Parts: sequence; C-alpha cells; structure tokens
Amino acid sequence: MAATSFQARNLGLATEVWSNMLGDEVTIFLGLAGAMVPAGMRSLVAYLIQHRLIDCLVSTGANLFHDLHESLGRPHRRGSATADDVKLRELQVNRIYDVYAPEEEIVASEDFITAFSEGLDAGRPYATREYFYLLGQKLSGVAKEEGILTSAAKAGVPIYCPAIADSVYGMAIATGRAKSGHRLLFDVVKDAMETLEIAVSAKGTGVIYIGGGVPKNFIQQTQVYGEILGRKLAGHRYAIQVTTDAPQWGGLSGSSFEEARSWGKVATEASAVTVYCEATVALPIMVSALAESCSDVIRQRKRPTFTMGERLGIR
Amino acid sequence: MAATSFQARNLGLATEVWSNMLGDEVTIFLGLAGAMVPAGMRSLVAYLIQHRLIDCLVSTGANLFHDLHESLGRPHRRGSATADDVKLRELQVNRIYDVYAPEEEIVASEDFITAFSEGLDAGRPYATREYFYLLGQKLSGVAKEEGILTSAAKAGVPIYCPAIADSVYGMAIATGRAKSGHRLLFDVVKDAMETLEIAVSAKGTGVIYIGGGVPKNFIQQTQVYGEILGRKLAGHRYAIQVTTDAPQWGGLSGSSFEEARSWGKVATEASAVTVYCEATVALPIMVSALAESCSDVIRQRKRPTFTMGERLGIR
Amino acid sequence: MAATSFQARNLGLATEVWSNMLGDEVTIFLGLAGAMVPAGMRSLVAYLIQHRLIDCLVSTGANLFHDLHESLGRPHRRGSATADDVKLRELQVNRIYDVYAPEEEIVASEDFITAFSEGLDAGRPYATREYFYLLGQKLSGVAKEEGILTSAAKAGVPIYCPAIADSVYGMAIATGRAKSGHRLLFDVVKDAMETLEIAVSAKGTGVIYIGGGVPKNFIQQTQVYGEILGRKLAGHRYAIQVTTDAPQWGGLSGSSFEEARSWGKVATEASAVTVYCEATVALPIMVSALAESCSDVIRQRKRPTFTMGERLGIR
Amino acid sequence: MAATSFQARNLGLATEVWSNMLGDEVTIFLGLAGAMVPAGMRSLVAYLIQHRLIDCLVSTGANLFHDLHESLGRPHRRGSATADDVKLRELQVNRIYDVYAPEEEIVASEDFITAFSEGLDAGRPYATREYFYLLGQKLSGVAKEEGILTSAAKAGVPIYCPAIADSVYGMAIATGRAKSGHRLLFDVVKDAMETLEIAVSAKGTGVIYIGGGVPKNFIQQTQVYGEILGRKLAGHRYAIQVTTDAPQWGGLSGSSFEEARSWGKVATEASAVTVYCEATVALPIMVSALAESCSDVIRQRKRPTFTMGERLGIR
Repeated sequence: MAATSFQARNLGLATEVWSNMLGDEVTIFLGLAGAMVPAGMRSLVAYLIQHRLIDCLVSTGANLFHDLHESLGRPHRRGSATADDVKLRELQVNRIYDVYAPEEEIVASEDFITAFSEGLDAGRPYATREYFYLLGQKLSGVAKEEGILTSAAKAGVPIYCPAIADSVYGMAIATGRAKSGHRLLFDVVKDAMETLEIAVSAKGTGVIYIGGGVPKNFIQQTQVYGEILGRKLAGHRYAIQVTTDAPQWGGLSGSSFEEARSWGKVATEASAVTVYCEATVALPIMVSALAESCSDVIRQRKRPTFTMGERLGIR
Repeated sequence: MAATSFQARNLGLATEVWSNMLGDEVTIFLGLAGAMVPAGMRSLVAYLIQHRLIDCLVSTGANLFHDLHESLGRPHRRGSATADDVKLRELQVNRIYDVYAPEEEIVASEDFITAFSEGLDAGRPYATREYFYLLGQKLSGVAKEEGILTSAAKAGVPIYCPAIADSVYGMAIATGRAKSGHRLLFDVVKDAMETLEIAVSAKGTGVIYIGGGVPKNFIQQTQVYGEILGRKLAGHRYAIQVTTDAPQWGGLSGSSFEEARSWGKVATEASAVTVYCEATVALPIMVSALAESCSDVIRQRKRPTFTMGERLGIR
Repeated sequence: MAATSFQARNLGLATEVWSNMLGDEVTIFLGLAGAMVPAGMRSLVAYLIQHRLIDCLVSTGANLFHDLHESLGRPHRRGSATADDVKLRELQVNRIYDVYAPEEEIVASEDFITAFSEGLDAGRPYATREYFYLLGQKLSGVAKEEGILTSAAKAGVPIYCPAIADSVYGMAIATGRAKSGHRLLFDVVKDAMETLEIAVSAKGTGVIYIGGGVPKNFIQQTQVYGEILGRKLAGHRYAIQVTTDAPQWGGLSGSSFEEARSWGKVATEASAVTVYCEATVALPIMVSALAESCSDVIRQRKRPTFTMGERLGIR
Repeated sequence: MAATSFQARNLGLATEVWSNMLGDEVTIFLGLAGAMVPAGMRSLVAYLIQHRLIDCLVSTGANLFHDLHESLGRPHRRGSATADDVKLRELQVNRIYDVYAPEEEIVASEDFITAFSEGLDAGRPYATREYFYLLGQKLSGVAKEEGILTSAAKAGVPIYCPAIADSVYGMAIATGRAKSGHRLLFDVVKDAMETLEIAVSAKGTGVIYIGGGVPKNFIQQTQVYGEILGRKLAGHRYAIQVTTDAPQWGGLSGSSFEEARSWGKVATEASAVTVYCEATVALPIMVSALAESCSDVIRQRKRPTFTMGERLGIR
C-alpha cells in the first residue's frame, strides 16, 4: 500500500510508523474521538489494549459510555443514515449516523453509572483515570464480552476522559447528585498532571489520534509542559493521525503535524503521518496489518507498567 | 442571500433563524470551538455578549486562553499557513494555521493564570463558570480592549469550559499545584448541572454552534436531561450550526440537526439550519446583518439575568 | 477581512489579487464549474462579463444550459435539499441540491437548442466558442433578462465548453442528429488551440477558478503549451481559486497552486490564493468588494478585444 | 465490513452492490476521474477490464494519458506532497500530490501521441472510443506491462473521453495540427450517442463512479435520454460512487444518488451506495474482495460484446 500514492500511501506509511513505535522503547498514547464504539470499533480498541499496541487511552466520554453500554449487553443496532428522525423520536430510538440505540436501553445504562458512582467516595476527588479503572473492574464481573473499560482494567492501561462532564457519565452522576446529594468530584487537573507524568517518565512517546477534539489536544499538550514536572520534553517521537478534518479550517482537530512541530508538540525529527480517511475504514486495515506482520515485535515490546490506585504508579 | 441557493441560502436562513430567536423569549447558548480568537473573532464574540445576542457561552479552553492573552495586550501575529515549522520552532514561535504566537508571550499569560488561580480558594471546588467570572473581573482591571471574558463578567453572561484541563488553563493551574501545592479544584459536574438549570428555567432555548466538539455536545445534552431537575424538555427550539465537518463522518461534531431530533436534543418542530462554511467567513456576515436589521429587536429582547456567585442565580 | 485569519483572510487576499489583476495588463480567464447558475449566480457572472472583470470564460455545459434556460424565461425554483426524491420523480421535478427544475421546462429548453443547432452548418466543425457566440446572439433577441451567453455575445467575451457533449447541449444536438440526420460537429482541438492563442497573445494572464473540473484544467494547460504557437510561457501571473475540494485527495480539482508551479501552470512568482469556501458565499463577497472599491480601475483597464467569426480575432 | 458502520459499512455495501451487478445481466459503466493512474491504480483498472468487472469506461484524458505514459515504460515516481515546487520547476519535474513525473518524459509521451494521431484519417471525425481503441492496439505492440488502453483494446471494452481536448491528448494533437496542418477531428456528439446506444441495448445498467466530474455526468445522462434512440429508460439499476466530495457543495460531482433519482438518472428502486473515501484506499479493498468471493460469478457473467470499427457494434 505504501507503494501506491495519495491516502493509500499514507495509510501504508502510518502502519509503518506504528510498527516502528512498537519496536522502539516509547510509551504510546491513543486519542479516541468520534463515535467509534457505536460504529463497531469496540473490539478493535479492546484488542489494542489487550495486546498493548497502546499504553494509555484518552477518550471522549461518549466512546466510554457506549463501551459500557455494550458491556452491559446492549448492542448498537444497524440503522439507516437517511431515517425519518421525527419517527425515530416517537419510537424513542436515538440515531448516531447509521446506528440506532433505543432510549430505554440508554437509560438503563445511565442507571448503572448512577448507582456505581454513588458507591464511590464523595470525600475526595477522583482522577477520571481512577474512576474508569474502578468502573472497568466492576464491569469485568458483568460484561458478556471484553470491551475497552474491562480490558484496560485488566491490562493496567490508564484511561483519561478530560471532558467527562460532557457525556452520559456527567449526566448520570448529576442525576445521582440531584436525587441523593452524593457529590462525586473529579480532579481534572490531576488528569492533566498524570498524563504529564506518563510523558515525563517515558524514554519517548508515540501518539495515534483517531479524530481530533479533546483527546488529540490533551495528548499534544503533554509534550509542551514537561517542565512542570522538571523535564523539558522535545515532542512526540512518532505521530499518526487518522482524520476527516483538514488544516485549512484552522482548528486543532484538523491541524497538521507540521504546525505541531512549531509548538514542540511533535518532535522536529518525528516520524509523523496524517491519513485523511474515515477511521472505520483505516483503523481495521492498520491493525490487521500490524497483527499479521508484527506479532513478534508486539510480544517483545518494552512497555510501561501502571498501577491504578488513587495515585498512578508508573514503572 | 436567502434568495440564492446552496450555502449562501443556508447562511441567509441561519441569519433569519437567529433573528427569530432574538424576537422570541428564549435563552440563547453559543458553543464556540475552533481557534476563533486567534483567527480574529474575539471582538465579534465580545459584541455578541455585550449586546446580548447570546446569553450563555460554552467554549473550548483555547478560545478563552487566547482571549485572555489578547486582553493582556499580547496580540496574535499575522503569519503564513505554509511557514517552515522547524524554523518557527527554533524561533520559539507557535503557529495556528496562518497565525503566530511567540512562546515567550504565551508563557507570560500562563504565569498570569497561575498567579490568579493561586489566589482562589483551594478549600472548595469551583464551577468553571464561577472561575471565568472571577477571571473576567480581574482582567477588566487590566485589559486594554474589551474581550470575551471581560464582557461576560460585565454583562453577567455565564461561560462554561467543560474541558478546562485540556488547555493552557489546566496546565497553568498544574504548574501552580506542582510548585506550591495549591490545589484548585473544578466541579465539572456542577457545570453540567448549571447548564441544565439554565435550560430548565427558560421558556425555550436556542443554540448557535460555531464548530462542534465539546461545546456542541455539552449544549445538546441539556435538552435530554431536564428530568434530572424535574422538567422534561422537548429540545432546542432554534438551532444554527456553522461547520466544516459533515454528517458522513459519523461524529457528533458534524452530525445533522435531523439526527439531533431523534434524541430530542433539537425539537421536532425546531427552526434549524446548518451552514457549511468556515466560521471566520460566515460569522461576521451573520452578525453584521443582524446588527443592521435587528437593532430594535436586540434592544427590546427579553433575556435571562444571571448572578454569578458560588451558586448561579437565574432570573 | 484580510486583517482576520483562516478563510476570511484568504477571501480578502483573493479580492486583492483580483484587484491587482484588473490593474495590470493581463487577460483574465474564468473557469466555472459547479451548478453556479441554478444556485443563483447567473446575474453575477453576467456582471463580470459586462463590466469585463474577466475576458474569457471556460465553463461546464451545465452552467451554460441553465443560463439559456433562464434566458428563455424558465427560472429555477427554490426547493429543499432534503426533499423526497421518489416523489419528485413522480412529479417530474429535477433536483439540484436545494433547487428544482421541472422536467417539462427542461425539455422545452432542449427543444430550443435542437432547433438552433439544426440551423447551423453541418458542413464544417465549430469551435464551441463560435457556437456559444451564435447562440448568445440568438438568445439576445429572446431573453427577458441579461444572462451569461447574451452578455458574452454583446461584450465579445469568448466562451469555451470543452466537454460540450457532456451536457444537455450534447443531448439536444444528438436528438437532432437522430431525427433529421443533421450532423453538427465540434472541433474541440480548435477550442484548445484558441485558448492557447489567447494566452500567447496576452502580455500576461490571470485566472479565477470557481470549482475545479474541466474548466480549471483547460485553463491551466494554456500556460504549459505556449510553445505550440511559438512562445514559451511562464505560467499564469495571478491565480485565484474558490473551492471546497482539497489537495489531500490528489485530484486536479483540489490541487494547490504550489503544485501548479511545478508544472509551470502558475508562474513561480505569481500572486496566488486559494479560498476554501463554497462559491455562492465567496463570489458575491469578492465581486461586491471589487465593484465598490475598484470601479475606476475596472473602467480604465486595458483588455483584449475579440472578434468571433469562424476564426477568433484577438487584439 | 458491512457489519460495522459509517464508511466501512458503506464500503462493504458497495462491494455487495458490485457483486450483485456482476450476477445480474447488466452492462456496467465505470466513470474514472481523479489522478488514479499516477496514484498507482493502473493495474487495478486494467484488471477490471481484463476480467470484465466493467464493460465500458468513461475517463478523464489525464488518466488515459498517464496510462499510455506508463505503457511506454515511463513510470511515475514516488515524490512528496510537501515538496518545494519552485525547486521542482527548476528541475523540470511535475508534481501530482505525492507523485513526480519528469517533464522530459511527459514530452516524449506527447510526441508519441502526436505521431500516432497524424497517422489517422483527417478526412472524417472519430469518436474518442474509436481513437482510444486504435491507440490501445498500437500500444499493445509496445507496452511493457498491460495497462488500461491495451487491455481495453484486447477485451473489446469501449473507452470514452468526452473532454479529450482538455488533456495532453488535446495538446499533442494541437501540436501536430500546428506543425503539419493535419487536422484530426473528434465527434464528441457521437460519443454521447454511442453511450446512449450501449444503455439502450442493455437489459439494465450498473454504474461505478470513482470521483465525479465529466465521467460521472456523462454516464448519468445516458439514462435520461434513451428516448432519443426510441426507448425510455428508468435509471441505472445499480450505482456505486466513491467520492471525497459531498452533497452540501451543490455540484454534480458530490451529488447524492437520491438527487439522481429525481432526474431518473438512477432508478427509483436502484441499489445505490456512496462511499465517502479516497479511492486509492477504497477501490483496492472492493476489488480484492470481489476477486476473492465472486470468481465464479465473474467468470460466468453475461456481458455485452462490442466491436470497435468506425461504428460501434453491440451484441
């Protein structure tokens, strides 16, 4: 594929960059935006975690909610992108492009979150990383099929969700607070500091961005602020982004890795590739190519080990 | 313009929808994503706040940082989108598409945030709304030119930044925490609950999304969860989005208002228009049209009044 | 506008480039793709011709058909982009995004073309330039409102349609050939040679591309092949494109002016700007800015004079 | 893949539609736009022709030129999308996104076309179909590796290039005309009529559009004008498009198959899928899936037989 051109070449090159990351001693961040779980990418992301093709996940709340939703045995239904949405509304069926999720089932999953969250300690704030670790453990006892949260809890892969209030999690926790007064707090600055710590502790870092948004920016900023923890960093050493956005719109989501170099987010000499392709097409191609050609590299790779208490341990 | 077709028509229709919002008794949310302030839209957004063409702002941290940056007298420089980024890195100049911001100046603004944040009470968590209100007041004494934060503090327009840790704010506060141990906390669930309260208190709501991301989703969810505060809502009554994303990519940022109807985020019978256009082009056209043709409507509109203590007051 | 950033800046810069073209002694080509006439841009393009903000038009057949259609008193109707197309099919109403054109009226305009074409000389092939000149003259006697073809015939602005068979023109002429055996021929190589001649005769050239496709490529190639007519050219001196396509897709339509420099299509030192914006939004802004600020320049500009016989005259 | 969502699902569905086309008794048109041959898709398109996964090709001139170029032993070179184009200009290397083609080699291929074209009969106009058939035969004696033109000549697959003057072909022929006065003529209306004939002779039709532009429109129009040849058609029965354009821009290239139904270009009940993906990624996936799963269907399919004289024969 790298022998052709245009985006097929970029897809081939991105796979090579990922393969090189796995062979080097770097900590790999995955930024996950877009409705990847409703779109059927849950098992694939779980695979990345189980086999440690990534070391740390930063995600939108939505992907983590829909992962829990499927873990609780509530699948997303195949729908149509040209459905009659007023009719769907009447039927209480929520649409995500060409996927359906009945409202009643969403509510049941919300209730699960509300109940789980009320079991946590209102006396101290949580990093979202700790929250999702505990939730992953809880789900492991319930899930019918391995998902993102459950795999991550087992594999000790930290998950961050810096915009947690902007999701069903936020709303389910708000529901609990409104009903019982139980006031669960998140310490989102701690999230930011922990990702800094991960970056500063690593010999080097690699990043894979599926979409842009908060996950991309949150991972980008770890390279700019190493000094806070006493070590100036030089930018991510490997960088892949799979995006349907584009630089000309000026936003961070579509911004190029060239621009990122000016900030020191990506190293001057980094291996960096942008693949302009919707991720449900690109991601399975990359991962199956890696699974086929890099199985030894994957097994033998040196990777960080995390412990997930109130305080994140990194070795 | 509404008499032509394609996106010019949509731009015309969106202006009409906004005009109708202003004439109806609705609370208007603005979701602001994308690097709008570096791109020169700061005064325009400040204008929207001062003249109350909007009532509540939900923004990325970046826009609020770059607003503070300009308020502190540090302008963004006209640069080039095809610059040599390795050279920029050497010169310590950060690039945002075709805009430059020298690193040294960024650091000075960070220091301002660190100092300001250390002056707050580490004993209780803040809604980001309260934080930005206090910051806006502080800046009002310093700013050379009216900006978003200063205008909002004066006009009593609440600003939410649900992903605050994902920005220079998060990092500047982390710096303070690392140095002095001063542990400022944000209660992002409170943010979510306050926006619910605003929605529930209103006779109706209208929304304007500049880009997608967290601001769009955060405002969308207020209509789905009214029940938490005891009132089932029927969806935003007016809705405008200006975007360069598109539905076929499946993500929330590019999702259509039709899809939003299936969830009840937008009312079944809402006036809703999507303008596919980069916002630096579309927004000034809409706002200057409204300023010209709706000055009476704007002056006379019924709008909510907010008070900005630890607890948000709404009248 | 040039004082802001992102696409607003590019829109401002493009207007400046056009203004500079008008002040310099260059021949200006306009490439017109996309359904600009159904979208309501007919009068604007006619304005460009009448006031000679352009000197030569290369267009898709569709725009020239829809221009004739309106000249014959058959307006395009305001429709909806989310219409039920099966129902429209039953009603025999053709949809172009959010514009409608009843089939019956289309057929009537086709008949006009068939009849007109059968009046031409089957004994020799026509340049499309000559064909549209004669058609413009014919329409001038009939048109209720000035359009593209009628203005061009009056102003002596040559119009080329290199893919004429790929349009209602081709089909209407085929209808005549099937019925009466009248075999009208086009000499499309002559089209290409005439545009070369225009380029070679000019002191310099400027180009404005609304969309990509054949019109863009056809105008681009005139700079590469000057040698055929004995003069090596150095590339267009001024270049503007307004597009919603993008370089990463690899096609000519979205290709950058940087890429064009490698071919010598655009001069190494050319003033060249790409505006990423749908043209119904961008074009009226540019033209009204020029009409306001450059009226003297427009009146006084030195421009080529063309005569439109079987052989194109250029002075 | 059809079991996931978003564009992966569409890619899976498109492959199913193609598979169904092959199993049904329909004539299959391929519209080929975008620089697919420079991007490395030449062998793949040749494969489609050789194994008759398509029956008729409508292409831009560029793809047919670059096919000849490679047939003459001049490969496209792997380049960089961020090259210094002024330097490339000095080196006389032409860039197509991330592909290079040295000017000297382009000129050599042009010379081949000029010489070939001067061998044709200036006394009568050619359909582009006949021209490319004769050229394919000529190249078959020379080509080092099977390409599009050579395969099509052997397989009796007609190739149309309605905008032939808008390409190196047009320019190479113009060169001959300027030098020797040899005036080769194309009858592009004949092209249009022949494609009508193919459509009218078929039990049904299926279409695959790689990109938009002239090829898409030219194939679309065959269903609207069957009456010219005495048979009202009902629209293509199967339709696939692989595109990076989008409906909201209003142009034909990005227009939906829903819109096409209003015109009768696509049948009301057609199986139609749009895949929003750059074709170098999507096309190889579809074709390799078909090659694997449909080999029997492909071998046994009923397909039209064409003879390629001055007059097209269809059986």
